[in-house]
Amino acid sequence: MSSIGITAPAGFRAAAITAGIKASGNPDMALVVNDGPENVAVGVFTRNRVVASPVKITRAALQQGQSLKAVLYNAGNANACNGTQGDEDAKELVTHLAGKLGVEAHEIGICSTGLIGELLPMDIMRTGVDTLPNRLGDNGRAAAESIMTTDTVAKETVVNREGWVIGGMGKGVGMMAPSLATMLVCLTTDAKVSAEMADTALRAATALTFDTLDIDGSTSTNDTVLLLASGASGVEPTQEELNAAVKEACVDLAAQLQADAEGVTKRVSITVTGTADNEQALNAARTVGRDNLFKCAMFGSDPNWGRVLAAVGMADAEMDPERISVHFNEQPVCLDSTGAPGARDVDLSGADIAVRIDLGTSGEGTATVRTTDLSHAYVEINSAYST
Amino acid sequence: MSSIGITAPAGFRAAAITAGIKASGNPDMALVVNDGPENVAVGVFTRNRVVASPVKITRAALQQGQSLKAVLYNAGNANACNGTQGDEDAKELVTHLAGKLGVEAHEIGICSTGLIGELLPMDIMRTGVDTLPNRLGDNGRAAAESIMTTDTVAKETVVNREGWVIGGMGKGVGMMAPSLATMLVCLTTDAKVSAEMADTALRAATALTFDTLDIDGSTSTNDTVLLLASGASGVEPTQEELNAAVKEACVDLAAQLQADAEGVTKRVSITVTGTADNEQALNAARTVGRDNLFKCAMFGSDPNWGRVLAAVGMADAEMDPERISVHFNEQPVCLDSTGAPGARDVDLSGADIAVRIDLGTSGEGTATVRTTDLSHAYVEINSAYST
Repeated sequence: MSSIGITAPAGFRAAAITAGIKASGNPDMALVVNDGPENVAVGVFTRNRVVASPVKITRAALQQGQSLKAVLYNAGNANACNGTQGDEDAKELVTHLAGKLGVEAHEIGICSTGLIGELLPMDIMRTGVDTLPNRLGDNGRAAAESIMTTDTVAKETVVNREGWVIGGMGKGVGMMAPSLATMLVCLTTDAKVSAEMADTALRAATALTFDTLDIDGSTSTNDTVLLLASGASGVEPTQEELNAAVKEACVDLAAQLQADAEGVTKRVSITVTGTADNEQALNAARTVGRDNLFKCAMFGSDPNWGRVLAAVGMADAEMDPERISVHFNEQPVCLDSTGAPGARDVDLSGADIAVRIDLGTSGEGTATVRTTDLSHAYVEINSAYST
Repeated sequence: MSSIGITAPAGFRAAAITAGIKASGNPDMALVVNDGPENVAVGVFTRNRVVASPVKITRAALQQGQSLKAVLYNAGNANACNGTQGDEDAKELVTHLAGKLGVEAHEIGICSTGLIGELLPMDIMRTGVDTLPNRLGDNGRAAAESIMTTDTVAKETVVNREGWVIGGMGKGVGMMAPSLATMLVCLTTDAKVSAEMADTALRAATALTFDTLDIDGSTSTNDTVLLLASGASGVEPTQEELNAAVKEACVDLAAQLQADAEGVTKRVSITVTGTADNEQALNAARTVGRDNLFKCAMFGSDPNWGRVLAAVGMADAEMDPERISVHFNEQPVCLDSTGAPGARDVDLSGADIAVRIDLGTSGEGTATVRTTDLSHAYVEINSAYST
């Protein structure tokens, strides 16, 4: 089987094992190694002020050198809100792994996902760290599977370019993932790029993909997106080429996360125009995308455009309250803030719903947010997870 | 039956009829008349920029003179997002009623609640306006019943003082009521008070009651709270006495709204301390109260304090991320941002859950928000309302 995930680019190996962290007995630890020749690494992290111990350590490692030789992953335990013991446990695992790999501790990243507020089961994880380096190979798929929590499918991507490749894996049920099921993404490439180039490409891509995927407005303590570059292809893409390829990989993974979001029955995109600038358009799209009444209407395939107006009217965005228009699947349902003929009969029974909202000013701001409906299954999954 | 609602204070009469607006055939129009001798009226309205036609008219009437002789209510149709036709329809009803009552149009308020984006059924409502003045009497209860939408019980209150009374009625399933089931409240009193005093008392009371009752973060186009004073008792309370009585009435109605919120199985109060000021504490309490993951955990009686930390970490409030504490029903579940012993065993099976969050700074800000859980019934009610 040719690799389609993180081990597709030259210079990368991965391993996954069942350490015993997950109650399910599924694989739960993974190791990603960048064999070089270069070890460029950049990342974006949760904006939550309550951050998990692994985020603190990986963020500090990247600040030190924008370089990582390996990243240790685990699912089943987020190692968040565990105080100084959590920090010490994460550090010990990193130091232990560095010794096994013969590298410095600050050249190792660590990402965890799972339940908040439980100490890591260190005994079995130390054993895991001993085992993982012996299993390294073309195991991108196994690594992607090992980081799943409430995910129902593994998420992988590959973007092929002339002489170089980007691979990726992701897990989570939305950018704003449940605190119990953090979004983690790892992108790898064999392109020869500087840390500055990689950072520029990653920030531009995440702003338009993971940052605008908003399942429930909740932001986890562990969200981490890493881009690792080995330079093993010897090919040096331009900034524009790199931007485009990284964006393509992120678009693909974001779509997979949206499709697998907890309890989803509808994939909803919300595009806002006619406001002052892109930031205000994003505010407005997010406000609608987080409105539970709107999300319930989508679950019910109900073209209840009044809920869109009620939601967007509270957004921090310039608007003309008498000149708002709304389209569902390109059919007008509200024009000049008033119902359009046939609005109640628009068919929203399909799985994909496109909502377009114009706020009625001459401003040229625009933005799109992707979200899902609010379903019985969402309530079910999230009311009975830890008990 | 002695009156316990809006007709309890001297100087007030009410009427309610079935005009035929609601598909259910239940009563759907009401009239409240202030016979004086004074006609003080003040109000607070939705902060939504998309406002219904009746809100525009009532707001303008109060701006003109802080005086109303009558208020016309209807349920079953919000008269929101109906463009200039909506404005004209509301104006016509008010003018028609003013003629019947022999008063000026600007002395009439109007409040509507129900579906957004449908024109008012003017024929039957004109007939309703003809009928209502002939039915005036001690009908506070009937008025309270006529404004119900998804409410399952009528909400009334009475606050008795030495020689004067406050009465009230309310409808809605939360301050931030569904766009289809607006919060409306009418308070009446026979105290002799100036408009300034009434306004001060009403704003102080709503800030601590309806403004901190947050069921789903959604804010309607129609929310209106009115306080009407007849002076009929001749008693002149001090500002402090008026404040206390109005607050008592609002606390009672807010509790009834919370208890009857759509799909509620839990009544949750969230108190935040340890941040810079009351406004930041309110931000933090609201952020937690609107977090769907937290609300699902409450539905599941799950003492999942990690979701509280993940939610509050995104709040616009000063905090020490390493020094946050959380109590559920006064039992510590998280201390210094780390799990407390026995946290997973705290019993949340009762209908009332008190959450206390200290953000770990020396700031003295504090605020309480009341919300509910996110249940299957909430999804059910709101995914199948208009279809």
